[in-house]
Amino acid sequence: MKRSSLYFTEDHALFRQSVRQFIDQEIVPQTEEWETKRRIPHSIFRRMGDLGYLGLPFSEEYGGAGADFWFSVVFLEELARCGMGGFATAVSVHEYMAINHIAKAGSTDLKQRYLVPAIKGEKIAALGITEPDTGSDVSAIRTSARLDGDEYVISGAKTFISNGTYGDFITLAVKTKPEAGTNGISLMVVDLESAGISRTKLNKMGWHSSDTAEIRFDEVRVPATNLIGMQHMGFYYLMESLQLERLVAAVMAVSGAELALEWTLNYLHEREAFGRKIGMFQAIRHKIADVATEIEVARQFVYHTCWLFTQGEVVVKECSMAKLHTSEMQKRVVDTCLQFFGGYGYIEDYPICRAYRDARVGTIAGGTSEIMREIIAKVVMD
Amino acid sequence: MKRSSLYFTEDHALFRQSVRQFIDQEIVPQTEEWETKRRIPHSIFRRMGDLGYLGLPFSEEYGGAGADFWFSVVFLEELARCGMGGFATAVSVHEYMAINHIAKAGSTDLKQRYLVPAIKGEKIAALGITEPDTGSDVSAIRTSARLDGDEYVISGAKTFISNGTYGDFITLAVKTKPEAGTNGISLMVVDLESAGISRTKLNKMGWHSSDTAEIRFDEVRVPATNLIGMQHMGFYYLMESLQLERLVAAVMAVSGAELALEWTLNYLHEREAFGRKIGMFQAIRHKIADVATEIEVARQFVYHTCWLFTQGEVVVKECSMAKLHTSEMQKRVVDTCLQFFGGYGYIEDYPICRAYRDARVGTIAGGTSEIMREIIAKVVMD
Amino acid sequence: MKRSSLYFTEDHALFRQSVRQFIDQEIVPQTEEWETKRRIPHSIFRRMGDLGYLGLPFSEEYGGAGADFWFSVVFLEELARCGMGGFATAVSVHEYMAINHIAKAGSTDLKQRYLVPAIKGEKIAALGITEPDTGSDVSAIRTSARLDGDEYVISGAKTFISNGTYGDFITLAVKTKPEAGTNGISLMVVDLESAGISRTKLNKMGWHSSDTAEIRFDEVRVPATNLIGMQHMGFYYLMESLQLERLVAAVMAVSGAELALEWTLNYLHEREAFGRKIGMFQAIRHKIADVATEIEVARQFVYHTCWLFTQGEVVVKECSMAKLHTSEMQKRVVDTCLQFFGGYGYIEDYPICRAYRDARVGTIAGGTSEIMREIIAKVVMD
Amino acid sequence: MKRSSLYFTEDHALFRQSVRQFIDQEIVPQTEEWETKRRIPHSIFRRMGDLGYLGLPFSEEYGGAGADFWFSVVFLEELARCGMGGFATAVSVHEYMAINHIAKAGSTDLKQRYLVPAIKGEKIAALGITEPDTGSDVSAIRTSARLDGDEYVISGAKTFISNGTYGDFITLAVKTKPEAGTNGISLMVVDLESAGISRTKLNKMGWHSSDTAEIRFDEVRVPATNLIGMQHMGFYYLMESLQLERLVAAVMAVSGAELALEWTLNYLHEREAFGRKIGMFQAIRHKIADVATEIEVARQFVYHTCWLFTQGEVVVKECSMAKLHTSEMQKRVVDTCLQFFGGYGYIEDYPICRAYRDARVGTIAGGTSEIMREIIAKVVMD
Ligand SMILES: Cc1cc2nc3c(=O)[nH]c(=O)nc-3n(C[C@H](O)[C@H](O)[C@H](O)COP(=O)(O)OP(=O)(O)OC[C@H]3O[C@@H](n4cnc5c(N)ncnc54)[C@H](O)[C@@H]3O)c2cc1C
Ligand SMILES: Cc1cc2nc3c(=O)[nH]c(=O)nc-3n(C[C@H](O)[C@H](O)[C@H](O)COP(=O)(O)OP(=O)(O)OC[C@H]3O[C@@H](n4cnc5c(N)ncnc54)[C@H](O)[C@@H]3O)c2cc1C
Ligand SMILES: Cc1cc2nc3c(=O)[nH]c(=O)nc-3n(C[C@H](O)[C@H](O)[C@H](O)COP(=O)(O)OP(=O)(O)OC[C@H]3O[C@@H](n4cnc5c(N)ncnc54)[C@H](O)[C@@H]3O)c2cc1C
Ligand SMILES: Cc1cc2nc3c(=O)[nH]c(=O)nc-3n(C[C@H](O)[C@H](O)[C@H](O)COP(=O)(O)OP(=O)(O)OC[C@H]3O[C@@H](n4cnc5c(N)ncnc54)[C@H](O)[C@@H]3O)c2cc1C
Repeated sequence: MKRSSLYFTEDHALFRQSVRQFIDQEIVPQTEEWETKRRIPHSIFRRMGDLGYLGLPFSEEYGGAGADFWFSVVFLEELARCGMGGFATAVSVHEYMAINHIAKAGSTDLKQRYLVPAIKGEKIAALGITEPDTGSDVSAIRTSARLDGDEYVISGAKTFISNGTYGDFITLAVKTKPEAGTNGISLMVVDLESAGISRTKLNKMGWHSSDTAEIRFDEVRVPATNLIGMQHMGFYYLMESLQLERLVAAVMAVSGAELALEWTLNYLHEREAFGRKIGMFQAIRHKIADVATEIEVARQFVYHTCWLFTQGEVVVKECSMAKLHTSEMQKRVVDTCLQFFGGYGYIEDYPICRAYRDARVGTIAGGTSEIMREIIAKVVMD
Repeated sequence: MKRSSLYFTEDHALFRQSVRQFIDQEIVPQTEEWETKRRIPHSIFRRMGDLGYLGLPFSEEYGGAGADFWFSVVFLEELARCGMGGFATAVSVHEYMAINHIAKAGSTDLKQRYLVPAIKGEKIAALGITEPDTGSDVSAIRTSARLDGDEYVISGAKTFISNGTYGDFITLAVKTKPEAGTNGISLMVVDLESAGISRTKLNKMGWHSSDTAEIRFDEVRVPATNLIGMQHMGFYYLMESLQLERLVAAVMAVSGAELALEWTLNYLHEREAFGRKIGMFQAIRHKIADVATEIEVARQFVYHTCWLFTQGEVVVKECSMAKLHTSEMQKRVVDTCLQFFGGYGYIEDYPICRAYRDARVGTIAGGTSEIMREIIAKVVMD
Repeated sequence: MKRSSLYFTEDHALFRQSVRQFIDQEIVPQTEEWETKRRIPHSIFRRMGDLGYLGLPFSEEYGGAGADFWFSVVFLEELARCGMGGFATAVSVHEYMAINHIAKAGSTDLKQRYLVPAIKGEKIAALGITEPDTGSDVSAIRTSARLDGDEYVISGAKTFISNGTYGDFITLAVKTKPEAGTNGISLMVVDLESAGISRTKLNKMGWHSSDTAEIRFDEVRVPATNLIGMQHMGFYYLMESLQLERLVAAVMAVSGAELALEWTLNYLHEREAFGRKIGMFQAIRHKIADVATEIEVARQFVYHTCWLFTQGEVVVKECSMAKLHTSEMQKRVVDTCLQFFGGYGYIEDYPICRAYRDARVGTIAGGTSEIMREIIAKVVMD
Repeated sequence: MKRSSLYFTEDHALFRQSVRQFIDQEIVPQTEEWETKRRIPHSIFRRMGDLGYLGLPFSEEYGGAGADFWFSVVFLEELARCGMGGFATAVSVHEYMAINHIAKAGSTDLKQRYLVPAIKGEKIAALGITEPDTGSDVSAIRTSARLDGDEYVISGAKTFISNGTYGDFITLAVKTKPEAGTNGISLMVVDLESAGISRTKLNKMGWHSSDTAEIRFDEVRVPATNLIGMQHMGFYYLMESLQLERLVAAVMAVSGAELALEWTLNYLHEREAFGRKIGMFQAIRHKIADVATEIEVARQFVYHTCWLFTQGEVVVKECSMAKLHTSEMQKRVVDTCLQFFGGYGYIEDYPICRAYRDARVGTIAGGTSEIMREIIAKVVMD
């Protein structure tokens, strides 16, 4: 059903069509291979670079499309419809979590060396914040970078790094002034092929097509010019960009939930039990009504938050709410949907099975639900 | 925090201020009296008529304000902030469920006789659909109206009728062609003082300030000109206006939930246990974060549905979702909030106590959650 | 369906029959009057005293029945089946929360003066712990009793005291050594007609037949011999008896939930919608299955905890779990059940309506769910 | 904490110790290998046969232990503590779902040929009911067995068959009188190496160590003496044994949930965030309290149902409730627990990650939650 929209224009609709076609034709057929091999070929990044998908929000000066935020929303929604949380993550981390730091605060030189090839899909980017001993508490990171001449020397370890195994460079959060807590963190770009780096691929429950790594840094030398923005200001850059990250996660969560519902509706129309289509059983129908409602309701909140975001409003509360609500919602929705596939829901040939494994990380990665509640409570109560 | 909005203008904001002031100054102080006496004085309707609140959406020709729908949304939100579900219902049934039928399909004569005084607050209106033996299944009503000369003769019974005890007239659904099911229902206006009518006030769990009646019709004679619109078309008029009714309920549910949260936040800042404000306990904080999130999320979906409604879109699915989601949400929210008042939450002096009793009817009146799920499933699945 | 039982003998079954008959014939018919008047006549206590119900667990020396704990379980289950949380509370507070302190630690003199008439139903007892400023944190009470000659002089205030308005005496927790925290609390018996006591009845959401009072003590003089057990040891007496209190609450919660289910099953077999009994709708049936399951599951845990209790095991964890789980369960169950009554569920003529108001206090009185979680977490985690 | 028990004796406790030791020493260390290879070596069945574990409930005449049911409960609880749903399933299907049919209704000859070697662990058994087109509706199976001389000729397909790939024989449900519905089903033992059988291993979300197969039967010939019990009576044999199956599933679900809680408690004591053990955060503590409560409550209901079962009572309702409640509970518990591992919960090195994948099938295999609700509603309502 075509609907009036306050957010999307005809241009967005056309763009949606083209992305959907791309995803259907060039991504979905690769699902089994990528998920089994647990990696995505570099070539698909280059292809997406060629199509302009990797530079949507960035300035044309660096090869970006300079498109308004709703194009990104459309892109992310369609991306999530590939049905592989892993692939969707790989791309969205690259574009909206790693290189956006360079685009925002990086020097022209850094932009030329990293942003431009990343937009082209020639280099794949990762974001490195979490460490083996600290995730939720970003201020407690211990990976350090000490200035030695015109180089930083980095030691420490990061973990759970998406695109960490096969990525080319990383936007890395390090302590440049260890004793200064949140005032001693800096962001810098590090080539992942640098000497002193060792990477171990992690074996995850889901997001199989995305490679996730533990990365050890042993006296890794990086040119001082790889610093992003101002020294010791990294914590604030990170906090600021978290709103975008959470919004991106929320947009994809809603779209992923909707996809799961679509698969389920199809199955309910096909499968029979006790002489009737199982979609005729009222107990199932009422749960589908609940699920459909949950998705629609969440979607409009996410759109609203996107809109506030485009208006330059402070959206810490809304983005945290969007992340919290949609990730929990997606988990519930996919769980309910899987149930109606009976035994087949447990078999990997059915995409709902993967969706279930994929959805579980939503309430953890990018800030746990507990951390979202901490932030929201602070805004609402204090 | 002032926020950009896609829906509300400065005019709406000013209007909100004036309604809020009216509610705070002229309604809230009456709470105890009205709730205890279980009735609202007619005079308050007249006062609201004078202020123009009762004719917001109606044509100026009949004394209405001809204001856009967002003024109604503002009005309903502020109305719900009186903290008496009963009063809010009395007014909203009058304006958005009973007389709107006359405004929409009634003859000019009917409008002069009933719409005009209703907008002035001189006459209070009720809506009569539900019967002792049938509520969810509107097509099964049995109250009949047979044409006898230029009068209809009505027999039967209605129940759960808001404004039924003290109201002046009722928009009544009757069977004019009993054998024709949904094609045999008509709507007509009936003076509640007519001979043959007996009314019994019902003793409800909540909504105390609202009077709810069982009404018996024993050969009640009504001028044939009191028919609203076309004979036998009543079912379709009702179905059409249900969207508005459900939207109205949804708008008030969100606002009611928010009010409950506000009371609770205040209490959390005051009350101490174990040497600290109870608002410092993390277990409470995290639930408040969830509650605040639920409210914000629901609100945006309701606004979105309102907007679709103003665009003239078919909103059967969205209005049913909004009614289902917000009434269930309000129930959960108020329950969670009450808990944090400890024993005081159970004492009638605290508004949260009334809010709990009031909220329970939300998933029943105006179409139960089960019926909402039936409708949504039909749209989504069939 | 008759079932083997590990806990109940034929004697218990016979006793159950007689209590059930008593409740059905002598209590249920009084429902409307007691609930409306918001009090229970003293005479019913005397009647129950005559029947031996008020001394079930107490020694025959003081007029008790010296019956094993399972008789008390039977009694409480049947008591809850009166359908008035208020009456059930009045009786159970009297017998299992107030006078049991005297039975356990009181002097022979105290027993003769208070336990004996209480068992006869001649005097009604209350328990006074909670104060306007502190409930969950018992150690923070401020009502003080200072020894003055052979009398204690009591000043302070208690609130939410069941049987507080019409009761005859109270087992009162006071600070006898204010600076000593939990080591400065004592229990003593206070006649509620004493000079210096003023009582205000509280207007509650439910438990209407039970009177609940705020009680002010203004230099109230009490014989020193009214001290229960050892001075300054009150906190430990209270903590010990909490296990029984919570078990009592749990037993009644399960029974109350089951009663609500029974009413609902009856209604589902009677009421029709869309041409069929509403008990035929699968969406309803599945929720009934869930509700029935919740009740049966909870019941066995409560029985098991009762059994452990009779074995003299430390049951702090289990009693807290039983209280937490059953009170939350009862709330959910009654809410689900009420929904299936449609509009009638909201009308006070239907007992499910009262059950809903009554059930809400379960997660608050006798220790909130949050406090139960604190205790359980401590046992399980620390 | 040692506890009195109504069910378990000192002998059971000793047996528990020995099983626990076996599981810890001989099973747990194999976890990674078996889960990765997605199979269990035959040798472990022989080892368990030697230890007497595979014949616990069976007559000593056929090599069983003739032990009371509580030994089986102990065994299943400890089995589930291996932390591999797959292994636990493989063993429990073999012993409690497949060969028990032979023990119950099989001829002495069948017992000698299949039960005896199965108890020794020399032959591994499967149970074949579900078919590609029908699972919940057992009466709709289509795999047929027609008598041809002194052999049955079997055609059709089964799916989701545990132990189906590497098992040696199968207790197979077939239609011997296709037109007779539930009165036309028979059970027979079929060697899985028979000509005409082809098996395909299924790739599941969890239960990795258990092999699950689709099995096609193409004119497979089986001696008529392989019929179990009476011809055409298979449906009733299946229905009867379902109670045991569901009880077995319930026992393991509770134990599995408890194991997940134990892992989590350990992690909460180790992991730090924001300068404290995460087990100190109240929001986490309260959820742990809920989880611990859910487990204890469920456990006692399962024990109670086991006890009723040993008393020979009709336990259709209780077993269905136990299966429904514990499988849903385990899913919730493991989900909550995983969350507290943060990112590590999503990594396969952590057993909680496997537990999450494993737990999902609980509400599907052995009868879905929807089917349980159908059964319960029938007993409770009709
Ligand atoms: C698949 C995957 C991909 C990821 N990709 C990236 C990436 O590309 N780059 C990157 O930097 N990171 C990445 N992460 C890491 C992710 O952001 C962290 O896992 C997450 O922030 C949680 O941190 P943690 O795992 O250290 O959990 P912890 O911080 O150790 O938390 C453990 C538990 O304690 C709870 N907790 C913590 N503090 C509190 C509190 N104050 N109150 C109550 N509860 C609390 C948490 O909610 C959680 O339940 C990824 C993680 C995963 C699983
Ligand atoms: C305070 C109050 C004010 C009201 N005000 C008005 C008013 O002003 N005017 C007016 O006309 N009405 C009014 N109503 C009536 C209200 O709209 C009805 O109560 C409601 O529509 C439900 O109808 P019922 O009570 O007959 O329930 P029933 O239709 O008898 O339903 C009983 C139960 O069965 C369920 N059920 C019914 N059909 C199905 C199905 N197909 N599948 C699954 N479950 C089903 C319902 O959801 C419900 O749980 C009011 C009600 C209340 C309580
Ligand atoms: C109808 C009724 C009958 C009663 N009868 C009696 C009686 O006969 N005798 C008697 O002595 N008392 C009685 N009570 C009092 C009852 O026991 C208390 O209300 C209850 O213990 C809670 O105390 P409070 O109301 O002071 O709540 P508070 O202690 O003020 O608690 C407020 C909120 O804070 C939460 N909270 C408190 N501490 C923590 C924490 N550490 N972490 C997280 N959350 C926390 C609570 O759970 C609650 O949600 C009765 C109460 C009622 C409503
Ligand atoms: C890992 C695994 C191991 C298994 N092991 C075995 C085994 O060893 N042997 C064996 O025979 N089987 C086995 N099974 C099969 C299992 O018992 C079935 O999957 C299960 O009974 C459900 O059947 P189905 O998959 O055909 O689902 P369907 O019957 O197709 O059901 C699909 C959906 O419809 C719902 N539904 C069906 N009927 C109704 C209704 N009347 N009302 C409402 N909803 C309804 C179901 O609940 C489900 O959600 C196994 C399954 C799995 C996943």
